[in-house]
Amino acid sequence: MRALVAALALVPLAGAFRATAARGAVAGSAVARRAAPVAAVSPGIAATSASSPRFLSAELARRVRAEFGTPVYVYDAALLSAQARTALAFPAAYGLTVRFAMKACPNRAVLQLLRGHGVWIDASSGYEVRRAILAGFKPEQISLSSQEMPDDIGALLQMGVEVNACSLAQLEKVGCAAPGARVGVRFNPGVGSGGTGKTNVGGPSSSFGIWHEQMPQVKALLAKHRLVATRVHTHIGSGSDPAVWQQVASLTLALARELPAVETVNLGGGYKVGRMPGEASTDLATVGAPVRAAFEAFAAETGRRLRLEIEPGTFLVANAGALLATVQDVTSTKGSGAGGHDFVKLDAGMTEVLRPSLYGAQHPISILHAAPAAPAGRVGGYIVSGHCCESGDLFTCAPGEPEELLERALHAPQIGDLCVVDGAGAYCAGMATKNYNSFPEAAEVLVGLDGTPHLVRARQSLEQVLANELPLPPAAVQGQPAAAAAAAARE
Amino acid sequence: MRALVAALALVPLAGAFRATAARGAVAGSAVARRAAPVAAVSPGIAATSASSPRFLSAELARRVRAEFGTPVYVYDAALLSAQARTALAFPAAYGLTVRFAMKACPNRAVLQLLRGHGVWIDASSGYEVRRAILAGFKPEQISLSSQEMPDDIGALLQMGVEVNACSLAQLEKVGCAAPGARVGVRFNPGVGSGGTGKTNVGGPSSSFGIWHEQMPQVKALLAKHRLVATRVHTHIGSGSDPAVWQQVASLTLALARELPAVETVNLGGGYKVGRMPGEASTDLATVGAPVRAAFEAFAAETGRRLRLEIEPGTFLVANAGALLATVQDVTSTKGSGAGGHDFVKLDAGMTEVLRPSLYGAQHPISILHAAPAAPAGRVGGYIVSGHCCESGDLFTCAPGEPEELLERALHAPQIGDLCVVDGAGAYCAGMATKNYNSFPEAAEVLVGLDGTPHLVRARQSLEQVLANELPLPPAAVQGQPAAAAAAAARE
Repeated sequence: MRALVAALALVPLAGAFRATAARGAVAGSAVARRAAPVAAVSPGIAATSASSPRFLSAELARRVRAEFGTPVYVYDAALLSAQARTALAFPAAYGLTVRFAMKACPNRAVLQLLRGHGVWIDASSGYEVRRAILAGFKPEQISLSSQEMPDDIGALLQMGVEVNACSLAQLEKVGCAAPGARVGVRFNPGVGSGGTGKTNVGGPSSSFGIWHEQMPQVKALLAKHRLVATRVHTHIGSGSDPAVWQQVASLTLALARELPAVETVNLGGGYKVGRMPGEASTDLATVGAPVRAAFEAFAAETGRRLRLEIEPGTFLVANAGALLATVQDVTSTKGSGAGGHDFVKLDAGMTEVLRPSLYGAQHPISILHAAPAAPAGRVGGYIVSGHCCESGDLFTCAPGEPEELLERALHAPQIGDLCVVDGAGAYCAGMATKNYNSFPEAAEVLVGLDGTPHLVRARQSLEQVLANELPLPPAAVQGQPAAAAAAAARE
Repeated sequence: MRALVAALALVPLAGAFRATAARGAVAGSAVARRAAPVAAVSPGIAATSASSPRFLSAELARRVRAEFGTPVYVYDAALLSAQARTALAFPAAYGLTVRFAMKACPNRAVLQLLRGHGVWIDASSGYEVRRAILAGFKPEQISLSSQEMPDDIGALLQMGVEVNACSLAQLEKVGCAAPGARVGVRFNPGVGSGGTGKTNVGGPSSSFGIWHEQMPQVKALLAKHRLVATRVHTHIGSGSDPAVWQQVASLTLALARELPAVETVNLGGGYKVGRMPGEASTDLATVGAPVRAAFEAFAAETGRRLRLEIEPGTFLVANAGALLATVQDVTSTKGSGAGGHDFVKLDAGMTEVLRPSLYGAQHPISILHAAPAAPAGRVGGYIVSGHCCESGDLFTCAPGEPEELLERALHAPQIGDLCVVDGAGAYCAGMATKNYNSFPEAAEVLVGLDGTPHLVRARQSLEQVLANELPLPPAAVQGQPAAAAAAAARE
């Protein structure tokens, strides 16, 4: 489950500066505080502030484009592996299961690579369960926690898929489909990250999980269907603060105390990952320490040694993926008046990376020149825009402000240059306005431990986009007025 | 081209009320002013404020679900036809071409229906051009205005497709591909709707079109390639104010004055359409009157009788489409504390209708009971959420505030009831986070003039979602550390 609040956290703006001088919001002052490297010239960019790609060398980027074209997502096997190893080292007193929140990046090869490390699956829909099975996971390695319980839940349980009931109705559905089964229960513990009335994944404004005060109804349904609650699940978007983790663990263990058959406690995901230079990432050893202590204290008190599950998504894949695009235009509105910008237009956009338009999210952006020998070029401030005919199709908005332009320092781009959008491994290929403006889905490439780019998803064709369409049935327009019929006949 | 500002316009909140009492923003006071039908009880809903579907009767909705399942988009041929006729009556002094901004709803049957009325095409990508041709449009009925000029532009021009060069580089590309050709030029006239530094489709913060002060460079490129500029295009998101239309027409005619071969003036689209009850729509006769007068004055002065083109998208389709979904859960966080809500969960979400999550857009929502004889049910305030594991997957946010919950007055829903999300004909099927959480693309149905629902796009299968994926190449993980290899071997 995902909290917007995590995505909207303010980030240090290395390599970015504000396009308009006056901005009274909190974000504005945060920028002013943090934008030390920005020179005091108009539009004001430090020559040193243009970023470099995280893992794509210019040579590799040119090779990927030559072999597979752009736009293309590129994942790095070494970085994926490193993150998997870090997650698997999360402090746990009595055993740990790491489940990949596969909605973050459901590509088969990525799933298979993580499976090789011993990472299991957090599925968010029945379709994701099937997809994970097709990628080679055993049903018993898959846990389903969904807002929408699939109709074939009985079959999934029969196969061995673990299920968290996320509402009283889901618990009833599980009970009817598989009386006597072992089941997990997802609770909303009553607190969450984010303000009152705002969307988040915990607290009264969240629709995720069973409200903690409904424990009596949970117990009644468990008894009615002879279900055994072996797992409790919470997820409040825990971020990087150890104190919050301690609170989540303690709330969740209080729920486990009420359900004596519980063997496993699942604390969900939502670990903040720094995408931008200088932005901090969650240190799992630090946030995990109080969790382990809480499990140990619980065991000392109750004799119950609970297994821990965590469900990282972003943490495993965000910085192990990039979008590689081509600069297909450079334009300017800098004329005689104020407020103009230089624009860089990519052959990609919200069709590939929606997070800036949706959350005002910040991604590192780097220009790589097409010719190997080309000089780096003067650094300037640019607005990077997407290829859709939509004013909000923008890679460089202000943090948390999708509609506000924020110039980014880039090495002066030329048409035909490469552009790398980093931090694009999570919620990009998996969550974008696919086929908007009829652009086909981009290809996906995995750079192996052998250093070679391997195609793991082919580019979609227009024929595939249209495959399910049917022509207008004549009966649907029979009786159309004469004028329209005549217009049709003219052709 | 689309302006966020139009989408974010405040709407009268019939059928909606604020979940939290205190909210200091402008939107809050607008709501307070307009929420007359809302009763002064907590949570406070007027019994009369639940809405009914715009064109889907309960009987038809039940039939559509029985035949095609949910979620499903439903379009109404009669409403589409009525909007086409209204658009074709736009006041024009010397001829009119209405082009459908097909990105709003690129379904083949919808395109074919509009073609039957004599509506032509505004394409926003080379892919849309191909798609329109496959739907039966002749190349000369298609106009391409894109942020990204396709590489096969020479072939498209050869076929007869009309092209607007939207940047100096695009003009150069057209010139190289087809020297001597007739071409349109899209300008940014230097003004737009929206504040400074905000995204919009005109003014210095917009990347759309050639900056008006670059006319000398345009003329030089036309001369260099012997191109004949027969059309000028502007689009600033003109809304419903006749004064703005007058300004746009006058700015655009000033550009046409500079280019003596221009025969056609295209004023783009962006006509505000009221989706919510009580919200006003653009009256084309009203906004068109000053435009016609401006064309007539231009003709009187110059002897040039210019043809008018307009490019409505939303106007033609928004209210002729609905999303039909099933209520698959009803939950509550109303406990002993404050701030709780009753939630309705649909079997659809941002995967089908992204506009609330992206813009804070408002759509009418109605509950239809599954059983024909069921009573309407008490009206209550509900948060309607989508099926994705994402806190921002929400149908009932505050206007312009995607993350802020706003309860909607609905007839008390039961699991299995139908839910109609109206105003979903534009930028829903065409612009959504398709396949997020691995949910397949929804089906599309057209209710014909015969009153019968016809399938016009079949539901996607999971196999289709995965069709282009390739397995992890063994070479990509060779040299994987022993621990990971062992984990892989365990399975």
